[in-house]
Amino acid sequence: MFDSATKLAHNLTKDAFKELEPQLREDLLNAQFDLVDQRKKAVLVLLNGPDGAGKGQVLNRFYQWLDAHYLETISYDNPDRFHHHHPQAWRYWRDLPAKGRIGVMLGNWYHIILREMLEGDVSPATLTHTLDRVNRMEAMLSAENVVIVKLWLHLGRDEAMERLKRGNGHRDIDDLTIREWPQIETGKDHDRLLMESVRVAEITSTAYAPWIVVPAGDSRYRDAAAGKALLDALLRASTPQAAAPAPTAASTPSAPCGPMQSNDTQAGANGTDAAPSTRFKLPVASLVGSLDLSKRLDEDEYKARLEKAQLGIAERMASKAMRKRGLICVFEGNDAAGKGGAIMRLRQALDPRRVRVHPIAAPSDEELAHPYLWRFWRRIPAVGHSAVFDRSWYGRVLVERVEGYCTEEDWMRAYGEINDFERDLDANGFLVMKFWLAISQDEQYRRFKEREAVPFKRFKLTPDDWRNREKWPLYEAAANDMVDRTSTTFAPWTLVEAQDKLYSRVKILETIVGRLKDAVAG
Amino acid sequence: MFDSATKLAHNLTKDAFKELEPQLREDLLNAQFDLVDQRKKAVLVLLNGPDGAGKGQVLNRFYQWLDAHYLETISYDNPDRFHHHHPQAWRYWRDLPAKGRIGVMLGNWYHIILREMLEGDVSPATLTHTLDRVNRMEAMLSAENVVIVKLWLHLGRDEAMERLKRGNGHRDIDDLTIREWPQIETGKDHDRLLMESVRVAEITSTAYAPWIVVPAGDSRYRDAAAGKALLDALLRASTPQAAAPAPTAASTPSAPCGPMQSNDTQAGANGTDAAPSTRFKLPVASLVGSLDLSKRLDEDEYKARLEKAQLGIAERMASKAMRKRGLICVFEGNDAAGKGGAIMRLRQALDPRRVRVHPIAAPSDEELAHPYLWRFWRRIPAVGHSAVFDRSWYGRVLVERVEGYCTEEDWMRAYGEINDFERDLDANGFLVMKFWLAISQDEQYRRFKEREAVPFKRFKLTPDDWRNREKWPLYEAAANDMVDRTSTTFAPWTLVEAQDKLYSRVKILETIVGRLKDAVAG
Repeated sequence: MFDSATKLAHNLTKDAFKELEPQLREDLLNAQFDLVDQRKKAVLVLLNGPDGAGKGQVLNRFYQWLDAHYLETISYDNPDRFHHHHPQAWRYWRDLPAKGRIGVMLGNWYHIILREMLEGDVSPATLTHTLDRVNRMEAMLSAENVVIVKLWLHLGRDEAMERLKRGNGHRDIDDLTIREWPQIETGKDHDRLLMESVRVAEITSTAYAPWIVVPAGDSRYRDAAAGKALLDALLRASTPQAAAPAPTAASTPSAPCGPMQSNDTQAGANGTDAAPSTRFKLPVASLVGSLDLSKRLDEDEYKARLEKAQLGIAERMASKAMRKRGLICVFEGNDAAGKGGAIMRLRQALDPRRVRVHPIAAPSDEELAHPYLWRFWRRIPAVGHSAVFDRSWYGRVLVERVEGYCTEEDWMRAYGEINDFERDLDANGFLVMKFWLAISQDEQYRRFKEREAVPFKRFKLTPDDWRNREKWPLYEAAANDMVDRTSTTFAPWTLVEAQDKLYSRVKILETIVGRLKDAVAG
Repeated sequence: MFDSATKLAHNLTKDAFKELEPQLREDLLNAQFDLVDQRKKAVLVLLNGPDGAGKGQVLNRFYQWLDAHYLETISYDNPDRFHHHHPQAWRYWRDLPAKGRIGVMLGNWYHIILREMLEGDVSPATLTHTLDRVNRMEAMLSAENVVIVKLWLHLGRDEAMERLKRGNGHRDIDDLTIREWPQIETGKDHDRLLMESVRVAEITSTAYAPWIVVPAGDSRYRDAAAGKALLDALLRASTPQAAAPAPTAASTPSAPCGPMQSNDTQAGANGTDAAPSTRFKLPVASLVGSLDLSKRLDEDEYKARLEKAQLGIAERMASKAMRKRGLICVFEGNDAAGKGGAIMRLRQALDPRRVRVHPIAAPSDEELAHPYLWRFWRRIPAVGHSAVFDRSWYGRVLVERVEGYCTEEDWMRAYGEINDFERDLDANGFLVMKFWLAISQDEQYRRFKEREAVPFKRFKLTPDDWRNREKWPLYEAAANDMVDRTSTTFAPWTLVEAQDKLYSRVKILETIVGRLKDAVAG
């Protein structure tokens, strides 16, 4: 869930920041005054992250940018956990911001839970037990007009260590006044904190209160991104909530794929994060858009490595350890990125009696009469068998989101539902692997043209392909969110540079070999 | 949560049933055809309960009353749990009814979970872990247009045993074809099943899929009640869902208690379970309305027992075991039922330095600017102290429900939120005790008149009291639902016959002594 923040550099130059800042401040203030005037919602920011990431600096920025009369800091010392005078929830309740106000909470419930996880092993059952209570409370607060913003300021290991050592460096002085994590001393400690925070985020990232990971390596980008997250929350708080999913056009058999007409869907369909009332735009570094597409393989190396990988897969699939397990492989990517070719090479390595490839097109009438996951559950094989999906349930958060076939509420909900689904598959012995195949816009154009020209390839190209191409940035944003919200410990995404088909196929098959090695060994 | 079903006789005579049935059938068929015509929702009935309760008979009734073309039975043998070919969820998904259809599922996920609970101890953490998955799945299905109806057919222990023995009795022949619980042989087994089902229901009764407990002692009443539950679900499925909580009048400081204007709230305000499009009414036996109000104490016995109970409370509160614990006592009841007098006697038994009595009236502006539980959380004392609430958070599901100050969605949600709240208090060492004081309408009239006549009592009577009196049946229905949905293992309700104040006070104080005895001993 931290993929973008972990793998990408997010920077803003001084000049770029100077140019952005006035608009951000104006939008923030306008949105805050709407919140104050309407007094219908409160905003609660849960500010978390390792020491040195700049929690104090972000807080100071908020005070600089907003009207401090309606902004409050709520913070807790690390409490001695054996010495509670009141139930733990009591103090959070006591300090809850009133409608019209913004409260920024440090040392909140996530801090307490993570501290306990660092102190000793917490079993999955105990963790769900604890986090179930958290989810129930946050669901209630959300329903009761408290908009919850969960920020995790992310630092890479090296950066975190450097900042801890720097200590009295002038740039981070105010941050060092907040030492929330005295127990984090080494890079290994830091990795542990990050790993546990991923476990927590996987269970507590909900449609009503999703986690937002803010890359904190560059202080200007960090502050702008935190400001953007707060701005989005303020806009959600002051515009009336979207109505409950209306009786939808999309769900009636007569209009199987028609876009829905509600306003918020249109906003979703336009794919911009910003609501109409804000003009601030933060340049977002895109993980799927920033792959090094120049990676290539020559024919000889391709043949050798492909064969080796296919053999590696076939051998391990035949092993005793895999007999009660199976693969669930998902292929998504830009149109014409080469999913079909890759799947063909994978299929060659698998026992045809034990694998099925499912090309996913528009749903049937019968499928439309069921919840969207139904059409995929029915294709989940028996244990010991495998399934390869050429496009998949991720259509919900890609095409359905971009084309407005479902509401924003629906696709926000879907991230968690999909994670639950894949957790189930993982728990039942399946290895879930997901591949995003990326090519450039130019390369796509070249391939489309080739498909038009070559008779036996013409069937691969539809008018839809050209239409989708026009929405490239929207699809890219959706793919990015998808990877960030559904790359989990149990079902990670692999991003594949697919400009060169040979490189792409080998990377995919070798990734599968790697996963299988671990599975057979473990 | 099973209070009404456990403690009340629910019967329909043959004639009464004959009179009701045609209207029920007509309403059911109309509602089913709306479901079929609209094809927007599916209805999934989870049919659970001990053997002999009549699951088969209820199912046969459904087939008799509804159009069988759009009705399906989904059932699972007791699966050998070590031999799943597919993930467990897979078969539920496979069999999910399509939009427009009703599916009745036997041997569903609750059956599997209860079976595992009967086979061995399941820790609270493991149980939440399992049920969290269930709740997430049901939330998703509900959001995806599947209306879930969870029926528990309830049999008392003696009745269940008798039916098991009768075996070849002619009346229950078709029921005996469904032997879901071969492991239940003795009354003790039956009690265990009931206890575990209460544990499960406490965690899985949600606003979107609440449990409905159907008293199954009398087969006619059982069938009518099951039919009524299905009818309600069909009506929910075919009328468009209520919009998300609108920006409410109740939440703006300018109109602190004004009723909201939305349509669905008005329906809630009318307090009838039946939506406008149905005319079927099932006579509901009311737990709070069927107490034996003739219970009395004479003055001498009162004095002796009151003093003894007060001493008993004072002694145990001073014990070492109670030093880190406290009481949270809630008093609700009909107006003029004598809450004040009872609280006074309780207060006399408690250390005034360690207890506070909170009379709860209309919320302040500040309280209205927070989620409704905030005003109660702030009154929760430190551990080792006690709090007595003269009216309480139950206002949400009583006055706010009846007067339409919140939406039906809000108060349905509140049952679970309140249970979570009280579970927190219990987990932190508080003994949570809740008393409902009941008097008759005549007695209330007498007391109101007396209050009018006696100068120093006049302050106790407001025009609101007379107005509320006119809504007696609505308040009674709300109180009944409240007791059924919030009487939990950790925070049970005690219903108090309060027609005679002396009897009422003694019953309350002696109940507290009993709880304290257990707490000090345990």
